[in-house]
Amino acid sequence: MMAATVETDVAVIGAGPVGLFAVFECGMLKMRCVVVDALDAIGGQCTALYPEKPIYDIPAHPAIDAAALIERLARQAAPFTPLYLLGRRVVRLSTGKDGTITLGTSQGDTVQARAVVVAAGAGAFGPNRPPLADLAGYEASGAVRYMVARRDEFAGKRVVIAGGGDSAVDWALSLKGIADITMVHRRPKFRAAPENAARLDEAAARGEIAMAVPYQLHGLEGDGSRLSGVVLATLKGEMRSVPADHLLAFFGLSMELGPIAQWGLDLDQSRVAVEPATCRTNIPGVFAIGDVARYPGKLKLILQGFSEAAMAAHAIHPLVFPGEALHFEYSTTKGVQMPGGAAHAAAGMAAGGG
Amino acid sequence: MMAATVETDVAVIGAGPVGLFAVFECGMLKMRCVVVDALDAIGGQCTALYPEKPIYDIPAHPAIDAAALIERLARQAAPFTPLYLLGRRVVRLSTGKDGTITLGTSQGDTVQARAVVVAAGAGAFGPNRPPLADLAGYEASGAVRYMVARRDEFAGKRVVIAGGGDSAVDWALSLKGIADITMVHRRPKFRAAPENAARLDEAAARGEIAMAVPYQLHGLEGDGSRLSGVVLATLKGEMRSVPADHLLAFFGLSMELGPIAQWGLDLDQSRVAVEPATCRTNIPGVFAIGDVARYPGKLKLILQGFSEAAMAAHAIHPLVFPGEALHFEYSTTKGVQMPGGAAHAAAGMAAGGG
Repeated sequence: MMAATVETDVAVIGAGPVGLFAVFECGMLKMRCVVVDALDAIGGQCTALYPEKPIYDIPAHPAIDAAALIERLARQAAPFTPLYLLGRRVVRLSTGKDGTITLGTSQGDTVQARAVVVAAGAGAFGPNRPPLADLAGYEASGAVRYMVARRDEFAGKRVVIAGGGDSAVDWALSLKGIADITMVHRRPKFRAAPENAARLDEAAARGEIAMAVPYQLHGLEGDGSRLSGVVLATLKGEMRSVPADHLLAFFGLSMELGPIAQWGLDLDQSRVAVEPATCRTNIPGVFAIGDVARYPGKLKLILQGFSEAAMAAHAIHPLVFPGEALHFEYSTTKGVQMPGGAAHAAAGMAAGGG
Repeated sequence: MMAATVETDVAVIGAGPVGLFAVFECGMLKMRCVVVDALDAIGGQCTALYPEKPIYDIPAHPAIDAAALIERLARQAAPFTPLYLLGRRVVRLSTGKDGTITLGTSQGDTVQARAVVVAAGAGAFGPNRPPLADLAGYEASGAVRYMVARRDEFAGKRVVIAGGGDSAVDWALSLKGIADITMVHRRPKFRAAPENAARLDEAAARGEIAMAVPYQLHGLEGDGSRLSGVVLATLKGEMRSVPADHLLAFFGLSMELGPIAQWGLDLDQSRVAVEPATCRTNIPGVFAIGDVARYPGKLKLILQGFSEAAMAAHAIHPLVFPGEALHFEYSTTKGVQMPGGAAHAAAGMAAGGG
């Protein structure tokens, strides 16, 4: 995936339903958008977590499944030719003297915009991390991981697998033939498919997998980068150490604000505090809408986010078109017209997912 | 049409798109609604003014015509069995000591509710009235009218017809055989169907209709109730008086808040001032949403009204279910369930339009 350098009117962070509708609302006011999302597809949680679940509270959709909602919102945004930069997280935000905001992504893209709309929902998806001291160093070296990219990287290694769900059980069964596996879980019972849980029990009985139950992760041993062992503890505080090259922790996915939390935005209960009716944050030119935004009385409903997208677009208009009056017109009167200079000024860019 | 006496959780004033969605949002929180509207059909302006016009800014509807929007919103509200009281205006609102709000309609209905949601758009439809002194008395007696209910009421009467559009021209042509017609218009040219404008010219040439052009209405003569003449003036101030029993004024329809403006609600630029995020007005238990509501930064968009409907429903919940915690759940989780006691306690009621 090549890195893009792109200049736009509005950079939208998050391609969930609310981010997509922000593209439409900005488009109606003749503002072009670039949309950045950590996932490889548009739709956010709707696509990633519950595409087939019906949603009942989208106005004028008595019932619509999440995937169809996203499809329709994308179609509604399409006339305004947004540029989607998918499969990358926004890692940096800085503001120039002239008010231009520059975003940097995890893939090295640079996006310059007059305004930023944070529509990041509950944040980017990420693994639940165990609360262990010195974790970061072991993560950076790859000693501690939350997913398996290539199975053969673990050949001949001592691997501690922590967790009680399908991922932990499946990887224990998959790696037991090539690695030395110790399985750690705080309860004897695993919440995995019954057939695989039974296979785990059999493998343990045959001595192919060492079981450490009921145990929890307690600490990491090593030089801060290279792992030598994992310390386990029972609920009663009995400790033991297991020699290990790797810890694979499968505690499920959660969402986290990630780098957004580091930009100096005022936060309120882990969400971005905004002014109601404009969705302005404390950073000039940066707006937040949808579930990530918080103000007194805020409801976490998709339809609230739609409304906030409209408010933010109107509040952004003077930043993109300073001094130009915004003549409010109903969509029934003006229809849908593409922004004037529709093409993005972009160099070396690769739109679309990875 | 029989008058209804009905008790409900929430009375919604206005059956436009936002009022309909308020029924849905209240229903999701297990609150029953009665909806009152001055028009004989649901849909407000969408149905009455532009049913076939496409709307582009309803989220997840790349384009939807107004009639289809209303049909879908009605279907979304239907599981919650709202009671529609159509063809009547709400003329009275009073609050009891226990907080119960009582509404009275123009048809003599009484609606008792724990809360009222004013979703009246730009108000009820009404005629544009000429700015004449002592108009109210002549309106009350039927001497001055804005529509013709029964043509034969004007038989043998001297009738001044004012206006330059289709209604004025059509009624002049229709009544000229049975009444003594004087046609008043400030310009020689009429904005009517060319064929009818030509027929008017011919009738005037034959002396069947007296033409007073270019003239405007200037005053009414009579005892304050019974009309004896209408005073006309040219733009230059030349005056004349035309003997008349009736004035029929056809200056088009406009919308007006009507009785709502008399209930003691704080108004802001002819709209109801509300608290953002709850849509509370200054009267306890009374909320306003959609175009009729105003707060700093408010945008007059249907999708804003949808969002306000959700906020109002959540703010109303503790009034209907005091002391009960509202467990916020997503519609994807709980689906759509009808309120507990779905049937309305109603006596002598006639739902549906006139």
